[in-house]
Amino acid sequence: MEHGDRDRVKRLNRIEGQVRGIRKMVDEGRYCIDIAQQIKAVRAALKRVGIEILDGHLRTCVTTAIQSRDKAQIETKMGEIKNLLGSWED
Amino acid sequence: MEHGDRDRVKRLNRIEGQVRGIRKMVDEGRYCIDIAQQIKAVRAALKRVGIEILDGHLRTCVTTAIQSRDKAQIETKMGEIKNLLGSWED
Amino acid sequence: MEHGDRDRVKRLNRIEGQVRGIRKMVDEGRYCIDIAQQIKAVRAALKRVGIEILDGHLRTCVTTAIQSRDKAQIETKMGEIKNLLGSWED
Amino acid sequence: MEHGDRDRVKRLNRIEGQVRGIRKMVDEGRYCIDIAQQIKAVRAALKRVGIEILDGHLRTCVTTAIQSRDKAQIETKMGEIKNLLGSWED
Repeated sequence: MEHGDRDRVKRLNRIEGQVRGIRKMVDEGRYCIDIAQQIKAVRAALKRVGIEILDGHLRTCVTTAIQSRDKAQIETKMGEIKNLLGSWED
Repeated sequence: MEHGDRDRVKRLNRIEGQVRGIRKMVDEGRYCIDIAQQIKAVRAALKRVGIEILDGHLRTCVTTAIQSRDKAQIETKMGEIKNLLGSWED
Repeated sequence: MEHGDRDRVKRLNRIEGQVRGIRKMVDEGRYCIDIAQQIKAVRAALKRVGIEILDGHLRTCVTTAIQSRDKAQIETKMGEIKNLLGSWED
Repeated sequence: MEHGDRDRVKRLNRIEGQVRGIRKMVDEGRYCIDIAQQIKAVRAALKRVGIEILDGHLRTCVTTAIQSRDKAQIETKMGEIKNLLGSWED
């Protein structure tokens, strides 16, 4: 496992704990707006991990495909990214 | 705990499991685009829970405030919602 | 036309000009990242107008419905908001 | 102007007309939820143009940078994309 992955695993561990915290807040009947703010924070943290992963993807897989000059391979990579971004906020 | 909350707790349990699944995917070096798609799915699931919570908030706390006709109280509720929505996608 | 609306009309005028500016940037073959940043800015400006409108809606139509205590009317308003927020980021 | 740009100019023309339509809706005091739905539609249309532009960017500028194997140049491109995506939904 490379350095970037270790960092992402750590962040996903923290996010898992935050989701558990939100569940506890609902369980305890905490104030709705506070719960919604926490959900917002977790969504933002997940988005940051997603961007890190996409950034890593561009620097490795996509870069390799482009350097190979294999058109079908490049087309696949480009299509995947476009498809992912198109539904990013759903 | 009322019915809606039980449903939300169940959904947050499932989301916690999904985050754990994503961490495992990173751990195992799975394909970046697949991981990013999973992050997207979890963010969408969290958003749905957030909207359920906001909907419940409007039907209970906000409704009570409006029926009380207490202007300061109503203003607080409205300000909280506006503030939440303004930063919703961050 | 009330004060809030006049402000929104002004902001929508400015947004219309910004969209025209983006079109011109594309026309002139300007740098993709600069164009994308401008699109991002216009989307954020539109979101702010949308939140203002939703805020006004809560303070007028929704407040009136809740004060009328007409259950069908309240249900309609709540359903509309939930539906709108559910598809907010599409 | 290449084919993709012509298509984007057309779409931005249509978006400009839609923004004008929203301003008219506000001017005429149309129902808030209908206006908010229109704002949502225009934001989605702008996002689609943004993704088209980013897709074009990856296929041209970024591909050229990667093929040049000029590390500083690649780093600049990668940083720009990461920065753009990080603030995409603001």
